[in-house]
Amino acid sequence: MKNLFVDKTVEALKKTLNYPANFTPLHEPCFLGNERKYLKECIDSNFVSSAGKFVDLFENKIKNLTGSKYAIAVVNGTSALHIALRLLDVGSDDEVLVPSLTFIGSVNSVMYCGATPHFIDSEHNTFGVDAKKLKNYLEKKAIYKNGRCINKSTNKIIKAIVVVHVFGHPVNIGEIKKVSENFNIPILEDAAEGIGSFYKNQHVGTFGKLGVISFNGNKTITTGGGGIILANDKNLAKRAKHLTTTAKKPHKWEYNFEEVGYNYRMPNINAAIGIAQLENLPKLLLKKRELFSAYSQSFDSVSGISIQKEPKGCKSNYWLQTLVLDQRKKSCRDLILKSANENNIMTRPCWKPMHQLKHLKGFPRMNLKVTEDLYSRLINIPSSSNLI
Amino acid sequence: MKNLFVDKTVEALKKTLNYPANFTPLHEPCFLGNERKYLKECIDSNFVSSAGKFVDLFENKIKNLTGSKYAIAVVNGTSALHIALRLLDVGSDDEVLVPSLTFIGSVNSVMYCGATPHFIDSEHNTFGVDAKKLKNYLEKKAIYKNGRCINKSTNKIIKAIVVVHVFGHPVNIGEIKKVSENFNIPILEDAAEGIGSFYKNQHVGTFGKLGVISFNGNKTITTGGGGIILANDKNLAKRAKHLTTTAKKPHKWEYNFEEVGYNYRMPNINAAIGIAQLENLPKLLLKKRELFSAYSQSFDSVSGISIQKEPKGCKSNYWLQTLVLDQRKKSCRDLILKSANENNIMTRPCWKPMHQLKHLKGFPRMNLKVTEDLYSRLINIPSSSNLI
Repeated sequence: MKNLFVDKTVEALKKTLNYPANFTPLHEPCFLGNERKYLKECIDSNFVSSAGKFVDLFENKIKNLTGSKYAIAVVNGTSALHIALRLLDVGSDDEVLVPSLTFIGSVNSVMYCGATPHFIDSEHNTFGVDAKKLKNYLEKKAIYKNGRCINKSTNKIIKAIVVVHVFGHPVNIGEIKKVSENFNIPILEDAAEGIGSFYKNQHVGTFGKLGVISFNGNKTITTGGGGIILANDKNLAKRAKHLTTTAKKPHKWEYNFEEVGYNYRMPNINAAIGIAQLENLPKLLLKKRELFSAYSQSFDSVSGISIQKEPKGCKSNYWLQTLVLDQRKKSCRDLILKSANENNIMTRPCWKPMHQLKHLKGFPRMNLKVTEDLYSRLINIPSSSNLI
Repeated sequence: MKNLFVDKTVEALKKTLNYPANFTPLHEPCFLGNERKYLKECIDSNFVSSAGKFVDLFENKIKNLTGSKYAIAVVNGTSALHIALRLLDVGSDDEVLVPSLTFIGSVNSVMYCGATPHFIDSEHNTFGVDAKKLKNYLEKKAIYKNGRCINKSTNKIIKAIVVVHVFGHPVNIGEIKKVSENFNIPILEDAAEGIGSFYKNQHVGTFGKLGVISFNGNKTITTGGGGIILANDKNLAKRAKHLTTTAKKPHKWEYNFEEVGYNYRMPNINAAIGIAQLENLPKLLLKKRELFSAYSQSFDSVSGISIQKEPKGCKSNYWLQTLVLDQRKKSCRDLILKSANENNIMTRPCWKPMHQLKHLKGFPRMNLKVTEDLYSRLINIPSSSNLI
């Protein structure tokens, strides 16, 4: 059946992406600089694994970029979240507030700690945590006892709030931080998608007690697989390094351990790629911004659809470009997905909300109508820096 | 204080390693072939992360080498053990038999599952699990109920036996397998250190229900960081791939999950190094064998000490060369460690036994006198392939 709106949408995509083309993935890496050189250096130096200069260098460069006092490189974003939650002392008797609109890694890391995810809603403006709704919810559902915020229904301590910068767009972290301070719930900032994004001139991932960034292959820059933990507290940072490197007690030759640790350190060879990638981050970010403009222009003439813009006062990295269907057009979402993918333009809906996944259905949650609404209307479209 | 035996030992090390030299680490990688070429190819292809041909290729090459029907590449050996235990359905109500003489990763993976490690003793001949002692122990301590082996003291199911090929030397897996079959406890073969080692012409890691190999930077060959799960059962292999790749349900665009998964897949860039490394494995193994001969010759004239040899009927990869002090000389262990390390020859004792670590002291265990004896008499010495 022909649908003019769907056709127009796919045409606008094709136009921006200069079709005909074979296939356009949602996001692929872009190697413009010294990647080959540093990899060669890495092999020449014989240091490819848990020792070598590139990991330290990568951590330092991330500190400079983000303004975070400490940065601890790990194997991926999920492991970074896992350790960050452990650092916040999240255990099996605790609850962690997590947006339902997020990638599964945010919730898996809570599950690894044996804790209970407690799902919270997002706002239309940023796709991220709705500060006002969270405040009202906690006022109703939680009590404050011995300096801790307790869920009245479950009697469990609400140990942390995971705040996700969805698709790289900075959330309203200023307002969320106020709520977190009022209820004494520390923030873990999931900036997995947020490298190069700023909220009021401060890099995302540096507002919470801890933050994480991912360098998976689908991110703005990549290390193959990789992530990093951001911290401003020296002791937390020290402990993060300890836990991610098997928790071995320092000694010249003895192998001694006093607690369960993790083999999460980023290998030197992966950090080598990251350094080359960081050198070109400004260029890559500029291209993503230009791609946003190009999409905006193409979709200007398509009524019933818009492209997600960075929030006011913020600078987004535009990691993943997102079409937002008007309410009246949401029944077309799957038709657009089908047609675009058939035309070799990779598109996908937003992640299925966490509270709708079979194994996560039983967990506590607030009313999640904005999450459900966004899920029905968002479509991610090709976003690689090399598309423009 | 002068000690002639210590001096002679350090002299024998120096002689084998052609001192004077700046510093000799315990083990470093050896890049002889196409590492730079394949890394460049990886960057040129734009596939460095979770997609790309090198991971499949690496898995296939490992299958060919080991004779395992399936192989699933992951980020490191510890994550491979973790998933393998999950595949054996190990949970918080279960016990897992683990040798006390092993690297912490074997036990950490049990802890990640929330299960109880139950420590078992090693034998002098292979440093690995003592089959006879295990049999006698289980006959006394366990009962067989509904097809399951139950620890009579704790009433917990003994769900698995982790069998470690210590320093790459094949354990007596034939005898251990008989015990495992008699008591219906599946074997997880921790061949983290065992690439290229064979027990009666069959590669280690392929005898148990599941096996793992590590490719950390200190191993015979490396992928920077990496590990692999070996399986002969198609369903277990399929599930291993599923769980290690976030357990996403296959769909062209939808993001759907039905259980907790892990971000454990080996990135393509790391697999690229592994392929180059595998191409030279025979050469590297030969060099390690030559190094063993050289050490043996140097130590021939030092009374009170020997070099660990491969068990009869087995082919060891000689991953980590090991000095074994005679009983009467064990008081010299720390003096040798001190003197060798002061002379820039990296040496270390065997891992501190697991049951002696502060946080693991409370767990069930058999009498571990051989483990304790070995710990007091073993010294690992430089073992890299490039030393000869």
